[in-house]
Formats: sequence, C-alpha cells, structure tokens
Amino acid sequence: MKWHNKVTSLLNITYPVVQAPMLGITTPEMVAAISNAGGLGSLPVGGLNADQTLSLIRAVKALTNKPFAVNLFVHPIPSQIDQQAFSDMQQFLTGFASENEIAYMPPVYDMLKFNTYHQQIELLISEKIPVVSFTFGIPDDEFIAALKNRGSRLIGTATCVEEALLLDNKFVDVITAQGSEAGGHRGTFITEGLPPMIGTMSLVPQIVDAIRRPVLAAGGICDGSTMMAAMMLGAQGVQVGSAFLVCHESSAPNAHKHRIQNAPARDAILTKNFSGRWARGIENKLMRAISASGLPTLPYPYQQSLTASIRSFAQQNDLTDFATMWAGQSASKAVRKPAAAIFQGLIEQAQTSFEQIEKHVQVRD
Amino acid sequence: MKWHNKVTSLLNITYPVVQAPMLGITTPEMVAAISNAGGLGSLPVGGLNADQTLSLIRAVKALTNKPFAVNLFVHPIPSQIDQQAFSDMQQFLTGFASENEIAYMPPVYDMLKFNTYHQQIELLISEKIPVVSFTFGIPDDEFIAALKNRGSRLIGTATCVEEALLLDNKFVDVITAQGSEAGGHRGTFITEGLPPMIGTMSLVPQIVDAIRRPVLAAGGICDGSTMMAAMMLGAQGVQVGSAFLVCHESSAPNAHKHRIQNAPARDAILTKNFSGRWARGIENKLMRAISASGLPTLPYPYQQSLTASIRSFAQQNDLTDFATMWAGQSASKAVRKPAAAIFQGLIEQAQTSFEQIEKHVQVRD
Repeated sequence: MKWHNKVTSLLNITYPVVQAPMLGITTPEMVAAISNAGGLGSLPVGGLNADQTLSLIRAVKALTNKPFAVNLFVHPIPSQIDQQAFSDMQQFLTGFASENEIAYMPPVYDMLKFNTYHQQIELLISEKIPVVSFTFGIPDDEFIAALKNRGSRLIGTATCVEEALLLDNKFVDVITAQGSEAGGHRGTFITEGLPPMIGTMSLVPQIVDAIRRPVLAAGGICDGSTMMAAMMLGAQGVQVGSAFLVCHESSAPNAHKHRIQNAPARDAILTKNFSGRWARGIENKLMRAISASGLPTLPYPYQQSLTASIRSFAQQNDLTDFATMWAGQSASKAVRKPAAAIFQGLIEQAQTSFEQIEKHVQVRD
Repeated sequence: MKWHNKVTSLLNITYPVVQAPMLGITTPEMVAAISNAGGLGSLPVGGLNADQTLSLIRAVKALTNKPFAVNLFVHPIPSQIDQQAFSDMQQFLTGFASENEIAYMPPVYDMLKFNTYHQQIELLISEKIPVVSFTFGIPDDEFIAALKNRGSRLIGTATCVEEALLLDNKFVDVITAQGSEAGGHRGTFITEGLPPMIGTMSLVPQIVDAIRRPVLAAGGICDGSTMMAAMMLGAQGVQVGSAFLVCHESSAPNAHKHRIQNAPARDAILTKNFSGRWARGIENKLMRAISASGLPTLPYPYQQSLTASIRSFAQQNDLTDFATMWAGQSASKAVRKPAAAIFQGLIEQAQTSFEQIEKHVQVRD
C-alpha cells in the first residue's frame, strides 16, 4: 500500500503517522527514529527556554535529516493569580511531601518566571523547522506568517469542531482532532471549564466535515487496525502517542512503564491536579491526595510549578505513587520495543487490516 | 457486499446493525421498520409492568415477522434510601416547577413501587422473544437459562473490559461495547461512582481481544463510514441509536428533535440529574438547576420518579428546557426521514465507504 495523500505531501513524509509530542517521555532519539522510519517525529518543547529548545533541536538534527515537528504550548499565562490559594496548595504539598518522605522544594511565588513560546520563535525560524505543531491555543498572526514564510508547515490541535474552525480560519495546514481517548493534556482552548470530551469516533468525522484542511485523528490510535479505522472516518493521517510510551527511546522510568502496561483503560482518568490543565493519566496517590484536600488547583502553569519537585523526585526514584503518568485509554497495548519496530509493525498491520477487512466481515463465522 | 458473520447468524438478521433501544423515543413502528429492513430493531421496556410490556411486544409482532430484541433494565433497586435527601430534592423540584409554571406532581415516598425485570420474565418466555438484550447488569442465572432454553439469544452491555468478562462468563451470546460517545444511560454495573468513559476507538478493540463472544460497537456509530470503522476495530456489528432519534417513527416531540439536530457534540453532557444514573444528554435548564441546587441526586430509579412529572409535562408541551434529551456525541448528524430510509442509507454508505477507502487514502490529494 502506497500512502499518498494531503498529509504525506504537505509534511513530506512516507506514511501519514505522527508520533505525538510527549513532554517528559519523548527524547530526540524517539523523534529521529520515527522520522527515519518514514513518519513524523515530534519534539515537545513546551515551557522550555530558548537554550534548552535549541539544544534539543540540534540533538534531533544530528540523528535525522528527515522532516520532524517541534511542538509548542501556546497558552496565555495569567499575570496574577489567587496568592492565598497558591500558598494553601503549597502548604498542603509541603505536608504531603513530608509525610511521604519526599524532598519538596516549594516555588517562591515572587520568583516564578514562566517561559512562553515567544522566546522560541526566533530560533524556530532560524533553524528552519520543517513542521511546527502547537496545542493549547493558536499562535499570534505574525508568528504564523513568519513560520509560513520560512516554509514551515503548521499543525494545530482541536478538541471540538468550534476549535477546528478557529484553526482553519488561521490557515493552519493540518488539524489534529484530539479525541477523548487521548492521553496527556487536552488541547482545549475555548473554555477554561471541563474540556469537551468527544470520542474519536464522533469527533473526527465532524471535524472532517466542517473544515477544508486535512485532519489527523488522535486518541485511541495505537496500531494498524485503529489507524485504518481512523482513515475510514475521513482522517488523512493519525497521531499516535501511548503506543510509544514504553518504547526503548522513551525516558519514562521502569516502574512507570510497568504501570502503564498493566493499567486498565478506566484507570487513565482526567485530572488537573498535576499541572492545572486537564489531562489524562493513570490515577495515583498524589492525584488522589490533591483531590481529597478539597483545595482548588491553580491555573496552568502555576499548579505545574507547585507539584514540580514532587514529580521530579518521583521520576528520579522511579516511584509511581507521585509521578505524572500521562496515558491514553489504549496505553495498556504499548510494548517495549525500539520505536522504529513499533512504527513498522503499525504500518504493516494497517496494510493487512485493510486487506483482511472484507474477509473479517464476511468469513469470521 | 454480503454480510455474513457471527452476529448475522446468531441473531438471524441480514445486516449486523442493531437499532439501540431508546426508552421514550423508540416506538413499535421504529422497531418493526428496522427489523423489516434486515437489521435488529430493539424494543425498550425497562421499568414497565407486564401489561405494558406485553402490549408493546404485541404491537411489534403485528408489524413484523422478523427477529427483534426486547431490552430490559436489570439493575438492583435499593430497598431504602436517604429519606431526607428525597424530601429535599422533592422540595427543590416543587419550587423549580412552580417558578417555571410546570404542573408538578410530587411522588409520595411510601407509595413508590418500582417494576423490575422479574415481572417481565414469564411473558418474555411465553412470547418466545427472538433476542433479549439488557443493560445495567446481568440477569439472574435461572433467567438466563430459561431464555436460552426457549431459544432466545442474549445481548449484554459492557462499558469496560471488566464488565465484558463478567458477561462472557455468563454465556451471553453477544456483547455490546458501549463507548463514551453513546447517548442515554451508561450501562455500567461494576461501579456506582463515575462510570468508565472509554471511547469507542479504545474500548472495542480491548473487549474484542478479551472475550470469546462477538462484539457490537456502540457510541458514535451513525453512518456507513463509522460502521466500517467499527468493523475495522474488530466489531462484528454495530448498535446505532442517535441516528434514529429524529426519524419519522421517533416519539420525540418536534422542538426536542430540532434541538438534537442543532446541538454541537459538546452540549451532550453526562448527568445523573434526571434519573439518578449517569446518562448523556443535551444540557438544559432543568439539568443545570439541579446541579446548581447542590443537592445530591437520589439513586436510580428514585431520582427518576422525582423528576417524572416535570419531564412528562415538558414532553407533552414540547419544551426543551425541562425534557430529557438523551443524545450521543454524533446526534447532530441525525436526519428526519423514515427509519427504513436511514437504515438503507447506512448500509449503502458502508459498502461504498469500504470500496472507496483505498482511493480515499491514496488519491485525495
């Protein structure tokens, strides 16, 4: 099966499969492995400063000369928040960390300084990044124009039809429809309340019908048959995250990988306790404790900064109780293999799934 | 395309498409139209007494000699509940009804008497129902045995792998995997808390992998391409609800139909305010008012009895503000046509979707 459609030609790739950017999981090695295999690797750089971003981009470039994506967070940062709520949450987490023998380094409110994508613009332009993808919103018009002038293709993220229409109007080249099955942060940007949780089976056809751009299906796509199901829905490509969560190039610690492979789908719940933005991850002790505290979470990225040292302690010590374990509803299907082997298996299975569906429908008796 | 698989042979139907039982929407005419068209119509009788059940079954039988399903609610009924909470909710609804000029007839706690599926057993056996489907649990062993002895096929509902395994162990013939996209009540029976909300794209392949029975995909299946996507996931058939919500044979009032066709997917939210069980429907004034009251909802079917007269007033007067408008996340795609025409369109589109997928993947450039 030769893949040739709008997604493969716009992004200049062989197979219309994008590896989802997974901050804290995706390494330059993972990105390069996927791009070298004919897909599109995505390097997550949301929240990093310019130096960190540049060094990761250079690391990817050293490993591949194929197109890859750099993924940005393009959310507004509240200039001020409820300081009492911040201090209450900090006090709660200090107590929690102490009870659990975790070294907690509380952030100092007045010292907080958050990186934004504006600091990354110049280097993305000077580094001539083939594809820039983004989530949590839409970049400023001048940024979109500058990237397009430089030849970068743009991929935006929508969790409902209304968001897809906004992206379409800004001439974003490809739109990722993020179904509710997806792991990690919801890309939602039109509401600060509970995000739309529309399943891939409903969301993809509705976005395909509503806009002129090609659509990538995300959420539940983990192998060849889910990929072909997404194509049947009108998607012209897919974004795959969880299937690469435990691959050899993933930076997830071992216990975290083990938990992901053994968690039933219903354990991957929606929470904003870790970061202040809604995200899907495997329930654990820290998530439950913050909920049980009854305290309101702070807006992103303030909540993120409050939990940072606990999460990083958990990561270093391979403790699943306190780690963020973002995972989609099909994450238990992930396998421990090199990323390229997982990718190749997906492509091969897509081809045989397609060839066998007629038999599957008619003969399985 | 000739359809021939485990589902068509077990259920003795031409196409592996089940019309979802939609209490308050599905009429005997709808059931017969689908069965006559080669699918499986489903008559919802949950909560009805034996006389009402029999009369509906007779009405279906007068219109078709093809196989059809009768759908039961097989939940436990709490023998006692928090009477103070009942009376608080009743008082709130009395005030709400009065403010909104609705004739409210509060149920009298001591007079409440709920029908259960046990009252329907004998007549299902004597009426030799071809297919008995059920939700909210698993019927007693002796009931399953009696129906099977009489030649009825059984269809159970699962919202997670764990529930599918329980149904599989009870020799239920076919299992419906109810993805989170689905409208109406969640079939969940292993937890009383928030139900698993696993999208169809993740749920179907996981249940197909876990059990030996054929699986029907439900949730987001509304046309031929979503049907073929479900088959690609390993389902051997589909259950379709929302696509028939506004058909000619639907008993939904006109304004209700209009609202369903014009509501974006994110308006179809999860609530237990109407019935006490989690269900997906279009948000309206009554739903919001009960949430805003801060009062706890009563367990099913107590909450159902408390809201009954408001909902029935809304139905009679075609008021969307106070009606239950169960709807799935693809309900806006529903069209006002005869059920048979919708069914036929789905089957034809499934065939062309399948034939065009290769072209769709390769040529759309």
